[in-house]
Amino acid sequence: MTTFDDLAGSELDAAVIAADHARVLHSWSAQAHLPSFVVAGARGCRVWNHAGTSWLDFSSQLVNTNVGHQHPRVVAAIQEQAGVLTTVNPATANLTRARAAEKVLAHLPGTFEKIFFTNAGADANENAIRMARLVTGRDKVVSAYRSYHGNTGAAVVATGDWRRVPNEYARGHVHVFGPYLYRSEFWARTPQEECERALHHLERVVQSEGPDSVAAILLETVPGTAGVLTPPDGYLTGVREIADRYGILLVLDEVMAGFGRTGSWFAFDRHDVVPDLVTFAKGVNSGYVPAGGVAVTGRVAHAFDERVYPGGLTYSGHPLAMAAIVATIEAMEDERIVENAADVGARVIAPALDELARRNPLVGEVRGSGVFWAVELVEDPDTRVPLAPDRVADVRGRCLERGLLPFTSENRVHVVPPCVVTPDEAREGLAILATVLDDVAGERA
Amino acid sequence: MTTFDDLAGSELDAAVIAADHARVLHSWSAQAHLPSFVVAGARGCRVWNHAGTSWLDFSSQLVNTNVGHQHPRVVAAIQEQAGVLTTVNPATANLTRARAAEKVLAHLPGTFEKIFFTNAGADANENAIRMARLVTGRDKVVSAYRSYHGNTGAAVVATGDWRRVPNEYARGHVHVFGPYLYRSEFWARTPQEECERALHHLERVVQSEGPDSVAAILLETVPGTAGVLTPPDGYLTGVREIADRYGILLVLDEVMAGFGRTGSWFAFDRHDVVPDLVTFAKGVNSGYVPAGGVAVTGRVAHAFDERVYPGGLTYSGHPLAMAAIVATIEAMEDERIVENAADVGARVIAPALDELARRNPLVGEVRGSGVFWAVELVEDPDTRVPLAPDRVADVRGRCLERGLLPFTSENRVHVVPPCVVTPDEAREGLAILATVLDDVAGERA
Repeated sequence: MTTFDDLAGSELDAAVIAADHARVLHSWSAQAHLPSFVVAGARGCRVWNHAGTSWLDFSSQLVNTNVGHQHPRVVAAIQEQAGVLTTVNPATANLTRARAAEKVLAHLPGTFEKIFFTNAGADANENAIRMARLVTGRDKVVSAYRSYHGNTGAAVVATGDWRRVPNEYARGHVHVFGPYLYRSEFWARTPQEECERALHHLERVVQSEGPDSVAAILLETVPGTAGVLTPPDGYLTGVREIADRYGILLVLDEVMAGFGRTGSWFAFDRHDVVPDLVTFAKGVNSGYVPAGGVAVTGRVAHAFDERVYPGGLTYSGHPLAMAAIVATIEAMEDERIVENAADVGARVIAPALDELARRNPLVGEVRGSGVFWAVELVEDPDTRVPLAPDRVADVRGRCLERGLLPFTSENRVHVVPPCVVTPDEAREGLAILATVLDDVAGERA
Repeated sequence: MTTFDDLAGSELDAAVIAADHARVLHSWSAQAHLPSFVVAGARGCRVWNHAGTSWLDFSSQLVNTNVGHQHPRVVAAIQEQAGVLTTVNPATANLTRARAAEKVLAHLPGTFEKIFFTNAGADANENAIRMARLVTGRDKVVSAYRSYHGNTGAAVVATGDWRRVPNEYARGHVHVFGPYLYRSEFWARTPQEECERALHHLERVVQSEGPDSVAAILLETVPGTAGVLTPPDGYLTGVREIADRYGILLVLDEVMAGFGRTGSWFAFDRHDVVPDLVTFAKGVNSGYVPAGGVAVTGRVAHAFDERVYPGGLTYSGHPLAMAAIVATIEAMEDERIVENAADVGARVIAPALDELARRNPLVGEVRGSGVFWAVELVEDPDTRVPLAPDRVADVRGRCLERGLLPFTSENRVHVVPPCVVTPDEAREGLAILATVLDDVAGERA
């Protein structure tokens, strides 16, 4: 055993990094090239290591700490629930779970009736897909190339008992291009043209796959990791029309975009569309305890009144996760955290990023709302060639040196602080980002 | 909003059940036929509802509360960690995660080098399968019909970005029969014959599928929900030999059997076999916070030193879950909880169930070790026809009436109390079970 107890400060940081890299296999990484970054504690929009160096968190970790780090009310709720009942068989009714379901449903349209709770976003999408297939009796799922819906794809098929069988036919996945005017796949020149052509493309794919074979259209309301691709006005209502025209269920993935991120409770609230199923995780309890879920409308809910729903998991509706959901949503309501995200986004982030885009040749486009923004970096504003990975890594490193923890993905910096970010914190982080990008652009010129 | 605050006792129980059934979609169930059972609190081996009725927990909920309910040390560790840091980006090194990896590895053979942490057992198996496929460059996974490995099978294929691509070829699943002498698929009459024939069957399937196409043999060390099917001596060493002969990786699923359940730290410790990958969840922290993982040997770990591991999740190595792992394993070590499970199993449960099997015609077979037992119920001991579902439900109902919370699955009662069960608690529960089964058999005769 490593004896961490005798260490402190930067020695402890070094020991933690060494132990972590030796014994932990990390997500989506080459293990010989892991970052050397320790978080020992956090509060609000700041994180720090054992040596006491702190950073302003413009990442919300993996875009999940919407109420900020260590919100006292959510921490207290977890501690209190931990003292009462941590875990329970999901088949057993439990007060905290009943409360959590009510809290989530209260922010959804009235057509939503029930919640199926999961551990995270991946299994939320798994179960949404399963429900759509069983309700429609169809197999295929249409989703976008520019999307991420989770990392799972095999366990139920490896399973041998009866629970495998109703899931085994389900394997058809078809991908389409969504609207993304800055790099249009449709030769479009205006948002309206991009919208119309993306809808045409989607409908042609549905028709060509055979509409009777398509169970669901599954879309992130605002594709997140793909680049905060807020859809143009009319796109999602058009998708809804296509879904209805062919008897297809619409599943909106709000794992990253939901619970305040875009400046509204759900991102689809801003797009005049009501889906049949909504998947969520992350912001629902800021990730303080692993949790996700699927919210379903009556048609889906009641399809399983007499028929067994063939999906499930040990920690569905886990009391500790549920307590964190209840406290998170109550804190967001009482402290007007969603409204804060909308306000800081409109008053501080939008103008600062617009100004940066006008001034700095590295910035190809900025887009977003609330506390959900992408700054797309390019080698050249005319060719729009994405900024090379080593130069993005350089931007990232300089931000960290100046006390800003950024979220980078491919050729982009995503500006995704907690929804509780204050105007001053937003200005502080945006100033660091602007300085770094101006320095890099200046050195290049 | 339902106002639960004005209610207490049985009125509160009724309100919780009504709210739960109205707004929560439940796992593996027809929603119009859910059980009406509330758990409000728990401690050790007992659970109770709001009215104060209590039950001795012979289910460990879903066979996960190995250290019992609300173990003070684990609760305190969760509360303490909640006050420091609940969540962190999985790419970031963190002290609690480094400790948890050390704690798990300390109980595995020395060939194991790293842990990939997940939210539960399903995504542990997902990632083990992915690793086996990528390390071997092969597609197929051989697992058992009598098995359960989790409920996920679609999210990564719905995903559109690059993370879909390395996972997309992977779809081949093949199922075999494992050893189960009481209902032999191989016309065997002795454990040795069952073992030899099950190995022959497995090898013939591997040969017939094409050994070069098989990435992994994935088995629950002791198939759990399928009926606590402890393999006969020699089976798992034979499986290991077949895997080695054809260059196949052996993945043992210890989600239910691991961390003390069988009376040893891992169930495979009792079978003279060392797998290449081990998946775990449940007992690793008694499910107090959702967590699972894959332990990997050096060959697998270092395959991803320079190559990106194409799998991951937001809550991988979640600090709250990790704190619960460290405290759970330390409690199990210090309080000799695994040794207690072995001792109670051998001294109390085994003789009581053997005696019951000899006496009661409903009992076809009992099998198990530690605190992991199945009582297989039959209509007739000669034909071995499984006891009808309504009669199993009757057994379950009578147990609940007498203060015992049983675990039932198909035609079986699984005797799966927490590993901390005392000899007196074990005797109390076994006496209730015996009374119920004797009553049912007597009324029938």
